[in-house]
Amino acid sequence: MKKPLLLLSNDDGIQAPGLRALCRALLPLGEVVVVAPEIERSAMGHAITLSDPLRVTEVGLGIAGVTAYACSGTPADCVKLAILSILPEQPALVVSGINHGANTGVNVIYSGTVSAATEGAILGIPSIAFSIDCRECRDFALASNVAFQISRRVMADGLPDATLLNVNIPEHPDAARIADYAQGRGFSLTVHGKSDWQDSFDKRVDPNNRTYYWLSGRKRVMSEAENTDEETMKAGRVSITPIGFDLTNQAAYEELSGWDLFQQQ
Amino acid sequence: MKKPLLLLSNDDGIQAPGLRALCRALLPLGEVVVVAPEIERSAMGHAITLSDPLRVTEVGLGIAGVTAYACSGTPADCVKLAILSILPEQPALVVSGINHGANTGVNVIYSGTVSAATEGAILGIPSIAFSIDCRECRDFALASNVAFQISRRVMADGLPDATLLNVNIPEHPDAARIADYAQGRGFSLTVHGKSDWQDSFDKRVDPNNRTYYWLSGRKRVMSEAENTDEETMKAGRVSITPIGFDLTNQAAYEELSGWDLFQQQ
Repeated sequence: MKKPLLLLSNDDGIQAPGLRALCRALLPLGEVVVVAPEIERSAMGHAITLSDPLRVTEVGLGIAGVTAYACSGTPADCVKLAILSILPEQPALVVSGINHGANTGVNVIYSGTVSAATEGAILGIPSIAFSIDCRECRDFALASNVAFQISRRVMADGLPDATLLNVNIPEHPDAARIADYAQGRGFSLTVHGKSDWQDSFDKRVDPNNRTYYWLSGRKRVMSEAENTDEETMKAGRVSITPIGFDLTNQAAYEELSGWDLFQQQ
Repeated sequence: MKKPLLLLSNDDGIQAPGLRALCRALLPLGEVVVVAPEIERSAMGHAITLSDPLRVTEVGLGIAGVTAYACSGTPADCVKLAILSILPEQPALVVSGINHGANTGVNVIYSGTVSAATEGAILGIPSIAFSIDCRECRDFALASNVAFQISRRVMADGLPDATLLNVNIPEHPDAARIADYAQGRGFSLTVHGKSDWQDSFDKRVDPNNRTYYWLSGRKRVMSEAENTDEETMKAGRVSITPIGFDLTNQAAYEELSGWDLFQQQ
């Protein structure tokens, strides 16, 4: 029987250790093709490239059975180009990650990792984004196991329409929790939370005496319901959030429907 | 009495006619400061710049009473930098546009125009994105009038929390409709629709014999409920969609809660 085709991408770039770990984790599930940015493309949101051509170069990742292409575009470009032009058939699954750093709360809006999976979902393919809550990110063993389990599950059962999964994995769960994961426990279904960044800009002067600004910030964890992405991950559980792309704010819709602007037809 | 401060941005770049029209339209409402991309930054999604410094240059737009800065960043960068570093106080309103081309359906996900307003809303400021459904976009008289009316309304009444307005204006409404707008009629509250793009990539070979890909596509209008953004605008009415940034797909959340993965604690 022909193996299912899996498309992998990320926003940390094609050489990122998290992407290699993901390749190895998902090889047992099918044929793995990687189309990922040639350089780091973090915080790209759902940017796509309209005014420039895209370049694609096959690269060797040194993982037997994996075909990989570096692309000059954004994460969303990579997935769109792969599905519409590079792959010989529709993939069974689009997987993005494993991102070096969590994508919870407001981060999800800016995330290139999530946008790669969003592009897959827009094109009708079951899609998942994986991120691990780390800074140095040396150990992907636990995250790889989680990625394998969730990907296998989605390939078997599919996903609801117009939905991707945004998965956030804690870095240092205690030993008991690690055993839980291996047995399929410790996963929580979560909602997209409101944790954000207390941003500021450093205003500096360059050697040529010109001013420049550099974004700096620290995460601000909002006190929220227990079933939000950030709170769940920080409690040592794997957070799985179903993310959609109908952006209507329904509560606001109800509230605004009272405006007299909409009463005069 | 001190005038309220209005922050304007866009994704077509600081020299775009739609931005100038917006400046002129909103000057009667307060002090206008523009911080906009120095070059066109369409389809940027909600990208922000982390790995590079941002530059800001004051430019003259030739509109009395308007202060304007060109910024090297994305639309979201412009708004974030303006609010956190450039403006002397919090603005009363963030307005993005007037975009040359509609931002309905899936376009909203990719739109730099909308992302500028999203950034304003994330930072807690009432925010609006305006787009007009045109290709050549020579006449902004009608759109300017619409922008003035809706902005004035939002400054008076505010917006629901965590919501921005995404406004799409038809290009050629009939004469009767134009009179309607001027009297505050012809506006519809809408939901974010599903119209998308039938995308493809042109695969070409450059003069140096290297392959490149160029995105091309045509809009595919989905047959939908009458109260969607695209259908409303095409019917000659001004579409006003309340856009949120809680991306949880609630229906999918209910559906997935049945997975046994979430039953084993």
